[in-house]
This record gives sequence, structure tokens and C-alpha cells, in this order.
Amino acid sequence: MIRTLPPGLTATAVVAASSANLGPGFDSMGIALGIYDEIVVETTESGLVVEVRGEGEGQVPLDATHLVVRAIARGLRETKVSAPGLIVRCRNVIPHSRGLGSSAAAVVGGLAAANGLAAQAGSSPMCTEALVQVSSEFEGHPDNASAAVLGGAVVSWTEDAGGAPSYAAAPIRLHPDIVLFSAIPAVRSSTAETRILLPDQVSHTDARFNVSRAALLVLALTERPDLLMAATEDVLHQPQRAPALPASAEYLDVLRRCGVPAVLSGAGPAVLAFSHDAELPAEAVQRGRDLGFSVVNTPVGHGVTWCAGVAARP
Amino acid sequence: MIRTLPPGLTATAVVAASSANLGPGFDSMGIALGIYDEIVVETTESGLVVEVRGEGEGQVPLDATHLVVRAIARGLRETKVSAPGLIVRCRNVIPHSRGLGSSAAAVVGGLAAANGLAAQAGSSPMCTEALVQVSSEFEGHPDNASAAVLGGAVVSWTEDAGGAPSYAAAPIRLHPDIVLFSAIPAVRSSTAETRILLPDQVSHTDARFNVSRAALLVLALTERPDLLMAATEDVLHQPQRAPALPASAEYLDVLRRCGVPAVLSGAGPAVLAFSHDAELPAEAVQRGRDLGFSVVNTPVGHGVTWCAGVAARP
Repeated sequence: MIRTLPPGLTATAVVAASSANLGPGFDSMGIALGIYDEIVVETTESGLVVEVRGEGEGQVPLDATHLVVRAIARGLRETKVSAPGLIVRCRNVIPHSRGLGSSAAAVVGGLAAANGLAAQAGSSPMCTEALVQVSSEFEGHPDNASAAVLGGAVVSWTEDAGGAPSYAAAPIRLHPDIVLFSAIPAVRSSTAETRILLPDQVSHTDARFNVSRAALLVLALTERPDLLMAATEDVLHQPQRAPALPASAEYLDVLRRCGVPAVLSGAGPAVLAFSHDAELPAEAVQRGRDLGFSVVNTPVGHGVTWCAGVAARP
Repeated sequence: MIRTLPPGLTATAVVAASSANLGPGFDSMGIALGIYDEIVVETTESGLVVEVRGEGEGQVPLDATHLVVRAIARGLRETKVSAPGLIVRCRNVIPHSRGLGSSAAAVVGGLAAANGLAAQAGSSPMCTEALVQVSSEFEGHPDNASAAVLGGAVVSWTEDAGGAPSYAAAPIRLHPDIVLFSAIPAVRSSTAETRILLPDQVSHTDARFNVSRAALLVLALTERPDLLMAATEDVLHQPQRAPALPASAEYLDVLRRCGVPAVLSGAGPAVLAFSHDAELPAEAVQRGRDLGFSVVNTPVGHGVTWCAGVAARP
């Protein structure tokens, strides 16, 4: 039975940016970054009002095609409630089209906001597994979505037994000595565009190269940060994207030559670096600036949260 | 400077069997199994005497082409000693040509025996890293060799920067709830023969399938044995080998349908199962027997050891 939500309910979701792939872990590894979008949703008598402030303001559609609105609608269906009208307020901080998981955050945040409404009407909110599944369906791959749902670092995977794919994810405990830096360029990219640069076929040799590095990456992230340099090597997507992202490719080289394990964040152009220090080497900082990157120490993000009402804001 | 060893020195090496690949971790993941070969080497005035008892007795060559002898010779060179003559006694327990790492054990055991001689002459024995490197050069891949050197479960990888490949490995802590069963058929196989069944090219989709499972496998082996079923899925080598190893392929299916995560051991035909119980389900035991497998609870193996003299034997 579908319950209709009364007008005047509000819910707030807070959801993190994320970096996917982490070098060898294509479509599988991800890590949430402490850069958060906030979504406040309110039920009304009818109609749809969408407000966007911050990233995407004046650029994204303000109607039912807005990704957050689509995710809320899906979340309401999944939790068996309906809303005659909605006001959706997005306060966006996660940069768009940089490989920082803003679309996964929109989806996960929208689903979580729906959870926050449904819970107030006595419906069961989607559990973590359902959030991973539904958000990954939106995304087509589970890496960013899982990181946004669970927070921290994750391994995610896809079961595709003929029918619709099912998605799952498990958290891994990040070693406390690992310090993240994100290098975010002013230039935007499109995941869809850069994804088509990837070949349909790869050599068995290259496949097993990444297999070994993905296994090593989990060990390095959890227990052996000293192995992160070897563990972040990749031959399945970064070299192929390099021609389309010359500044990112160059900055990856710079960081690695400075002894800082670094990877493309998702499909780029942002770069994620793993340091054991609170600061990057001076050369890495300077070259990052020269190449147009804003390089910042970035905390690990927490998993998506939701609550009834409008959350207090700092 | 090369030191010449006096006659009458003896050294003993004990080295474990191993299972490589572990499903998705092709050429990378490995685990040592508690089935041991012992090599006793003695320096003499001149000549070479090779004795083999147990596995391979009457089948392997008893001259300088014997794999253990070649490894000892290499080990003596690496440790900068020479021996005018040698007696090499092999007590072999690890079944040959089953995918249980008997050749890696021969190489690692031979190198370790050379270490045992060199140490008595005041030369520095090869360190762990050197043992991994040199034994992997013999093998052409580091998975079995690393497991035999380090013991326990390992992630190994290859750096191939144009010149000769360099090999490295790191141990992972196996979760204490994991119980291993090896299913060893009477039938032999040849790794070389089954390796050529593998395609040169694979789809990017299949490559990333194994990437996700290899990452998950490290998590499952160390902290989440409940995820071993998904974590042991593979599309890069087991399906391709199945036609050549029908009994192994069938037994893998049987075990997995019984809820027991199982993989081909190396290139087969042996099968390795991961259980959380001290016994396998009755159906799995019975079908294993019917298919010609000896199915036994197998402890995790320790890393290679060497000592001066002839080790006491139980």
C-alpha cells in the first residue's frame, strides 16, 4: 500500500563526494571525500520547486529531470510513499564534472532524503544494501555510489547473472597514516566522453597486471601504506584517458616522481594523492598550481546521513 | 670473491606446497599449504649425486638438469660460494603436476638449501626479497614462489619496466575462521599445456570483473570470510581451463552449489576450497570421491626454512 505524505514534512540528507577507481580498481574501488552536498526536501500540496545553490546553480535543470528529484521520486517509490508536491533545496559544494562523484552524491542524497520523509510516515527506509543497489542502478557502476552510501573506502562489485545487474559493496578500514589530497582543476570533464576512450578488448597481460595491483591496493590501503606506489599502478584506464586529460596526466607523473602515490579521481580530471604527511612536497604543490589545480588536504568522507527536519547548519 | 665450500657441510630446507591464483587473483594471489618437501644437501670433493624419494621418484632426472639442483647452483652463485661436489637428497611429498606448486617448492627449497650452506661459510644468505625475486625468475610468475617463500597467504606482483621483470610479494593475514580443503586428483596435469588455453585478449568488462573480485578477495581472506563466495569468482582463467579439466570444473560447481567457495588450485587439476567448518558438507565429500579426488583438510603452510645439518625428522 502506498501512503501519501502530508504537506509540511521536511527531511535533510548530507552526502559526500567520492573518488572512484583509485588507480587499478576500475569500477570497483572507491573512497568518500569530506566534501558534502546537502539536500533539504519538503512535502507540499502539489507541484515541484527546485532550488540549487552553489555548484550547478543556473546550469542544472530545475524540474522533474533534475537528478536529485529523480532520485527522491525513486526513493519514495521504493519506500512505498508518495508526495503530491515537493520543494527540493540543493546546497551543492561538490564540484561538477571533475570526477568527484557529484552525480552519485545527487542520487544517494536524493534517496536518503526520501528515506528521511518515509521514516516520518511510518514506512521503512531503504537499508544500506538497498541504497547501494538503487544508487548504482542510476550510475551504472557501484564504485562512487557505494562510497557515498557507506563512507570511507570501499570495494564494490557487480553480479550480472543475465538479468538486471545486482550491486554490492563492503567497507575496508583505511590505514590511519594515509592522508588524502585532492587536486581539482578549474576545467570540467564528462565521464561519458572519457569513458568511450576505453578499449573493448585488453590483453590478458594487462588484465592480470590490474588484478595484482587491485589486490595489492586493498592490502596497502588497510595495512601497508608503504606499498601504495606499486598498488596504485594501472594500465586499464589511466593511460587511455591521458591524451584527453593532459594536465591531469602530467600532474600524476609529477606527484609520482615526487614519491606521492597518485591516481586519477574517477574518470578525471581531478587527481587524488595518498600521502603519509600533512603536507605535499613543495615541488608537488607548486607544479599543481602551475597546472591549474587547486590542491587541498581532503578528509575522508562519512557515509550518507538523513534526518527529519532541516538540519542545523554551521 | 667466491668462497669454495669445504666437503662435509650439510644443510636442510623444508618448503611448502602452494595454491596460486585463488580464483580471480591470476598470477598474483597465492597461499602456502601445509604439505612439505624436504631437501638435504651435502658438499663433497667432486661430482653430483641426486636421490629422490617419494613424489617423482624414478621419473625426474637425477643430474644437473634436476630443478632442485639448478636452484641450488643458482643459490650458491647468488651467495658467492661454490661447491666442487654435491649430494642432493629430496624427500618429496608435494604431488607433482596437480597445480600444487611442486616446481616452485623445488626452486625455493633449492635456494634455501644453498642459503643453509652459504651461511656456514660466512656468506650472507639471500634475504626474503631475493628469494622471491630469484625463485619467481625460475617460475616466470611470482604467485607460487612467493607463497612458498613467505608462507601463509600472499599478494605478489611483477614490475616489468622494459628490462628483466622484478618480482615482489607481501603477506596478508588470513582470517582465523578460514579452513582449507585441498581436493587432489590422481590425474596429473601440465601447467604449460593448460596455460596455452588462455586467450591473448579479454574484454575490458571481464578484466574489471576480476579486478573487483581480486580486491574483494583480499578483504574476504583477511576480514570478511562471509564474502568468499563472491570474492572467488573468476572469468579470466577458470572457465577457459574447464574443458581441459572436466572433473575439476564439475567439482568446483558441486562445491559452490554446496555453499563452499572453491577455486582451481593454480592451473589445476587440484581444487582448493575455503570452509568455515572443520568438515565439508557430506554431499561435497561424496561427490569429490566419486570424481576421483582425495579431499583433505589442509593446514596453511609456513614459509621456507633452512638450517645447517640434517634436520631431525618426525
